[in-house]
Amino acid sequence: MDFNVDTAARAVQESFGKTPDPRLQEILTALTAHLHAFVRETRPSIQEWEQAIQFLTAVGHACSDTRQEFVLLSDVLGVSMLVETLNERAGGTESTVLGPFHMVDSPPRDLGDNIDLVGEGEPCAVSGRVLNTDGTPLPDAEVDVWQCNEQGFYDVQQPDLQPPGNGRGLFHTDTEGRFRFRTVVPSHYPIPTDGPVGRLLQATGRHPYRPAHIHFIVQAAGHTPLTTHVFVAGSPYLDSDAVFAVKQSLIVDFAESNDEQEAAQYGLRPPFRRAEFDLTLTKART
Amino acid sequence: MDFNVDTAARAVQESFGKTPDPRLQEILTALTAHLHAFVRETRPSIQEWEQAIQFLTAVGHACSDTRQEFVLLSDVLGVSMLVETLNERAGGTESTVLGPFHMVDSPPRDLGDNIDLVGEGEPCAVSGRVLNTDGTPLPDAEVDVWQCNEQGFYDVQQPDLQPPGNGRGLFHTDTEGRFRFRTVVPSHYPIPTDGPVGRLLQATGRHPYRPAHIHFIVQAAGHTPLTTHVFVAGSPYLDSDAVFAVKQSLIVDFAESNDEQEAAQYGLRPPFRRAEFDLTLTKART
Repeated sequence: MDFNVDTAARAVQESFGKTPDPRLQEILTALTAHLHAFVRETRPSIQEWEQAIQFLTAVGHACSDTRQEFVLLSDVLGVSMLVETLNERAGGTESTVLGPFHMVDSPPRDLGDNIDLVGEGEPCAVSGRVLNTDGTPLPDAEVDVWQCNEQGFYDVQQPDLQPPGNGRGLFHTDTEGRFRFRTVVPSHYPIPTDGPVGRLLQATGRHPYRPAHIHFIVQAAGHTPLTTHVFVAGSPYLDSDAVFAVKQSLIVDFAESNDEQEAAQYGLRPPFRRAEFDLTLTKART
Repeated sequence: MDFNVDTAARAVQESFGKTPDPRLQEILTALTAHLHAFVRETRPSIQEWEQAIQFLTAVGHACSDTRQEFVLLSDVLGVSMLVETLNERAGGTESTVLGPFHMVDSPPRDLGDNIDLVGEGEPCAVSGRVLNTDGTPLPDAEVDVWQCNEQGFYDVQQPDLQPPGNGRGLFHTDTEGRFRFRTVVPSHYPIPTDGPVGRLLQATGRHPYRPAHIHFIVQAAGHTPLTTHVFVAGSPYLDSDAVFAVKQSLIVDFAESNDEQEAAQYGLRPPFRRAEFDLTLTKART
């Protein structure tokens, strides 16, 4: 029988009938069903289909070693956050999106190091503990940190103005599960708007801003890795993050501190900003 | 309220609530619903989501001036054919997919010209009429033709072996609505398998072959353009086209001919292959 609107999805699903990997077959069968349902519902014209092809091609061409426009597209469609939420392990710190800027390895640093290599923002001391769900500190946990600068740009976005690794650091917790580093208070910022995803936001009347945050990936032996942010309390756009990533439990006070002793630990003079929070990992599934 | 699995799609749809173009809003609202439903159903792991991002990025990077891997992806998922079928106008010649090889303008040619610039395949004379649905011939209709050679390659795939424009021609019908050209009988062929779409087919146990065909886009004033193929009767893969594009009504006999007079018209000597068929356009919507 000829391909027609009613038989199309089934014909494509049958073509995947000999897929050796059952999970791949499951995903492609569901993809075909939902993709064809979307097309049948919206009945795109040939011109609209061509525009969609051109858009996806432009997204692909915008991807480079230091930019991931498909992650950005997944982010603004809420898909990244949906996937994170579906994979979240109850009981630990809530997770949120990876985002498109974890493209380069974070440089290994010692506890207390300054991840700000430029020195133009508002100095800030960040510290806390990595715990398991019982509240037991986890020594030697890996804490991977990345953030934008006080103007809202990541190092890879300003290769001429920021040294590589600015705003990034790979730390390991001490014997008491503690991490600490110095940085600058990150700014809220627009996601890159000079590519196809930016044009999509503009065409739909959406603003491109994300509230100020610091990214974390935390890993410890025997535990499920945690990808999350800590958001700066009071930042603009906490209620309308362009990538839907805010969870109330992740908003942290970056209060001004005048603690002389603590300032000295970080090579700072008061006043400075201070953020302290714990990050809790759940046990790995065995 | 925090983003969660149940509220996610609605939150994203609401973010598109101020889209000025109502059609764009309609498409994005439906896309969000179906995409989120797909993700909720399949519950991809973070690693699977990353693989999907990497796959789409690779598809984008495979696209160039002479290769359209996203069209190919749309083709092997049956989406191109579904869009064509949804847009088909009843009463005319059936349509089928554009395919990824209509990337370059076809060179204007005179009726009877040879679109085969190499001379290694089996010579073939192709002719017919462009008609409206009443059977009235349409003079000065544009007939855009492209095909692979006798080895199954388009010119853009073999820039070292085929001159640009080989297998392509832009014709206009005569006062009786007739078109005619000389070519070689095209071969069945595999769609490009050296990119991510080829890897997808391999991973799913699907063969990459398309039955032999010649592409057409036909346009005439006051009529809806027609994108279709003519398939070579008896070709392998007519029952399992990798891009789902075969319709029974488009299969044409490319019979051997010994007609001396006709052969002479095309500068041929018998025997030669002969294909004759009409292409019918529907009236444009007014």
